[in-house]
Amino acid sequence: MAKEFVKDVTAMDEDFAKWYTDVVTKADLIDYSSVRGSMIIRPYGYALWENIKQELDTRFKETGHENVYMPLFIPESLLQKEKDHIEGFAPEVAWVTHGGEEKLAERLCVRPTSEVLFAEHYRNIIHSYRDLPKLYNQWSNVVRWEKTTRPFLRTLEFLWQEGHTCHATDEEALEETVRMLNVYEEVCEKVLAIPVVKGQKTEKEKFAGAKLTYTIESLMHDGKALQSGTSHHLGQGFAEAFGIQFTDKEGKLQHVHQTSWGFTTRIIGAMIMVHGDDRGLVIPPNAAPTQLMIVPIAQHKEGVLDYAYELKNTLSKLVRADIDASDKKPGWKFNEYEMKGIPLRLEVGPKDIEKNQVVLVRRDTGEKLIVAADALESTVQDLLRDIQQNLYQKAIDHREQKTTPAVTLEELKEIVETKAGFIKAMWCGDRACEDLIKEETGATSRCIPFEQEEVSEQCVCCGKKAEQMVYWAKAY
Amino acid sequence: MAKEFVKDVTAMDEDFAKWYTDVVTKADLIDYSSVRGSMIIRPYGYALWENIKQELDTRFKETGHENVYMPLFIPESLLQKEKDHIEGFAPEVAWVTHGGEEKLAERLCVRPTSEVLFAEHYRNIIHSYRDLPKLYNQWSNVVRWEKTTRPFLRTLEFLWQEGHTCHATDEEALEETVRMLNVYEEVCEKVLAIPVVKGQKTEKEKFAGAKLTYTIESLMHDGKALQSGTSHHLGQGFAEAFGIQFTDKEGKLQHVHQTSWGFTTRIIGAMIMVHGDDRGLVIPPNAAPTQLMIVPIAQHKEGVLDYAYELKNTLSKLVRADIDASDKKPGWKFNEYEMKGIPLRLEVGPKDIEKNQVVLVRRDTGEKLIVAADALESTVQDLLRDIQQNLYQKAIDHREQKTTPAVTLEELKEIVETKAGFIKAMWCGDRACEDLIKEETGATSRCIPFEQEEVSEQCVCCGKKAEQMVYWAKAY
Repeated sequence: MAKEFVKDVTAMDEDFAKWYTDVVTKADLIDYSSVRGSMIIRPYGYALWENIKQELDTRFKETGHENVYMPLFIPESLLQKEKDHIEGFAPEVAWVTHGGEEKLAERLCVRPTSEVLFAEHYRNIIHSYRDLPKLYNQWSNVVRWEKTTRPFLRTLEFLWQEGHTCHATDEEALEETVRMLNVYEEVCEKVLAIPVVKGQKTEKEKFAGAKLTYTIESLMHDGKALQSGTSHHLGQGFAEAFGIQFTDKEGKLQHVHQTSWGFTTRIIGAMIMVHGDDRGLVIPPNAAPTQLMIVPIAQHKEGVLDYAYELKNTLSKLVRADIDASDKKPGWKFNEYEMKGIPLRLEVGPKDIEKNQVVLVRRDTGEKLIVAADALESTVQDLLRDIQQNLYQKAIDHREQKTTPAVTLEELKEIVETKAGFIKAMWCGDRACEDLIKEETGATSRCIPFEQEEVSEQCVCCGKKAEQMVYWAKAY
Repeated sequence: MAKEFVKDVTAMDEDFAKWYTDVVTKADLIDYSSVRGSMIIRPYGYALWENIKQELDTRFKETGHENVYMPLFIPESLLQKEKDHIEGFAPEVAWVTHGGEEKLAERLCVRPTSEVLFAEHYRNIIHSYRDLPKLYNQWSNVVRWEKTTRPFLRTLEFLWQEGHTCHATDEEALEETVRMLNVYEEVCEKVLAIPVVKGQKTEKEKFAGAKLTYTIESLMHDGKALQSGTSHHLGQGFAEAFGIQFTDKEGKLQHVHQTSWGFTTRIIGAMIMVHGDDRGLVIPPNAAPTQLMIVPIAQHKEGVLDYAYELKNTLSKLVRADIDASDKKPGWKFNEYEMKGIPLRLEVGPKDIEKNQVVLVRRDTGEKLIVAADALESTVQDLLRDIQQNLYQKAIDHREQKTTPAVTLEELKEIVETKAGFIKAMWCGDRACEDLIKEETGATSRCIPFEQEEVSEQCVCCGKKAEQMVYWAKAY
């Protein structure tokens, strides 16, 4: 056999970074290649992404969005049209300089994001208020030239969707920005069982070229935060730079108001770091490519495999069920599917068949249940719901336990160094304080949450009067 | 309104190339951008691709294939490992030489296809006969540095799927090559109503690095051929170059046998050129994003819109139905949906409601039918089936009418110049004859069809004894 019988992973509390890379490789999510900083997404990892994609795409279509596809390459001059945007992205783009044997007259950048391509297209196709809103989305790969990379979390190339919309008014654009943030929140919480904090990015942390950026932030097992999806109100910056104008109902020429929003394969990294444990991945049932894996016991004995396949057929009508009837030992299979985080394992052998029962094992709690055959269908469905709910609740509890208020910079620093997690602290709004906090503690402002609390009355850094509470954390 | 009331297209017989570009832009399939040779796939074009993708993906999964995702970039040294492969692709790849501000130590090519990345990965993950077969597929964008480009048919970047598989024996790899060719044939014929000729490419035309290439070839309205999908038996070339080995059941180390196969957005170009007419696109119902469009007549009159929406809800349970309740004039809508090739139009106004009937108009024949309300559901389904069948039959008839045998080179040349289409002629198998035919006539060998006929006993070019019949044509 190619694989060892037991696949050990480093314990989480021993070396969390090592645990993470052990899990992504040993659960067959990814493989490395000779392409620096890029990853191969293997079938199991890609099936996860397909599920997430499906959940998002359905919601995008329900909210009236259409999918399009823009070119991979952006001419340098086009990228330079919006000043803030090029400033933000220039240091991290890959440049194509040759096509075949020929040197190009103008360099092409491999898209790091597609605002400028959408802007150019919108200028061509938008003329009247009747053409608005335009609600487009694109599923694609993008490239950002990162120095240090980690599978899913930060890679040279990643897969994502980028929504780009145009509206007649600022209010409509703002509504859209919130609507799509809520879609992201729903997919995180309901599908991936990842609780998120919704809020606004500071000026420093907002998207290059945006008027404002909304974000959802989640907390990993090790107490570091992860930006899990962002939705930008672009205002009229790109519209002015590119001349995207429409004639309004009164016949007046106006610039459109835009949004853009993105969600990436990085969320798979979040899912791993929120739910995983020392035995490997733990995948929430709503995201799991396989929700229940049937492992026949003593499968060489008469009737066992037939019965196991019968169960698979019956259960497949209700849940994503699969069977492993290979000649590997049951113990090997148990390890394998625990590593892969499959929510439920069903064991069935001659004795179970005799007793008209099966054994179900929960991945999240390890609990073993003996279930009568005639109660199986409803039990499986109930258990999957319960596992989904349990994982979400555990993540909420973990976040609460790891969320701490701080009133002084010393407090903030101490929390970062000892307990980590989210730190709630007041901020005066000055960039200087934000910079100093990062410098002193390593924590960055994650967001100004929509749900505000008055932790104190003074800025955690300078002590001046402060009215907004910010979530701070070290982040991926 | 942004669009003119009537969108004229050039007549097909006047200027087919112009007709084509008129249709792809006026039917809102694509838009141009400042990225040379690339296209923007607009919502209608992308919805078409999503349907085709879905049809293929379902069949791939049914035949045991799994989706993966490989990096976009290929280091130059990796591309050079298989000699024939690099020779074939080097002249047409885009090179990334800079990341951010830094010059790269080694150039990266933007994938023109991913054989070498799959080969490297397979070397890592295949060890034993138990690991075989490996049946992977990838949905992605690829780049080939083309000089002259046309939307869908030949673009710098295109979307496709590329299947890559590994097998224990030559026979199994050959079976897979045929199996996937048959999947392509089925999607072309059953979904896109495009009849295809199945056959083998000559040595000259086969894929760079393959042992043999199978192809499906279709015939466009103007009598030119279009390669519509290819499936390659790669033999052991990549396995040897990359060292992809497995231990067989006897414990002996062997190289795997590989296949690869691809299907691209170019098929949308084929669909346009096989079924389109002077009023625009004609989309086969099985591929159509919208199969039936409801156009309310005198929609300001009481009850009309309510009834039209009721029809939409009822019909949407059976077919992909939509309604245009905008304030544009019905005549404008008729033009628009004819241009977009929507298979069926349903018109309903106050008089129809009074008479308990609706009007259905077929896009393929222009036929107008008055249908009693209670027969509507079954009539719509029957008509869509009939339109699908009719388009396929028309394409078959056209191809037969445009397929001509030739016995001498002069005959072959004359047919190319006057009638065009497929030319069936015998070939001795010599590359020199194949080259000369191209030089003299402009026609290339499309394939050595699986269904052979003895058109004559001599090679159409050199007159030597010839046993294989080849399809020749000018091609896109």
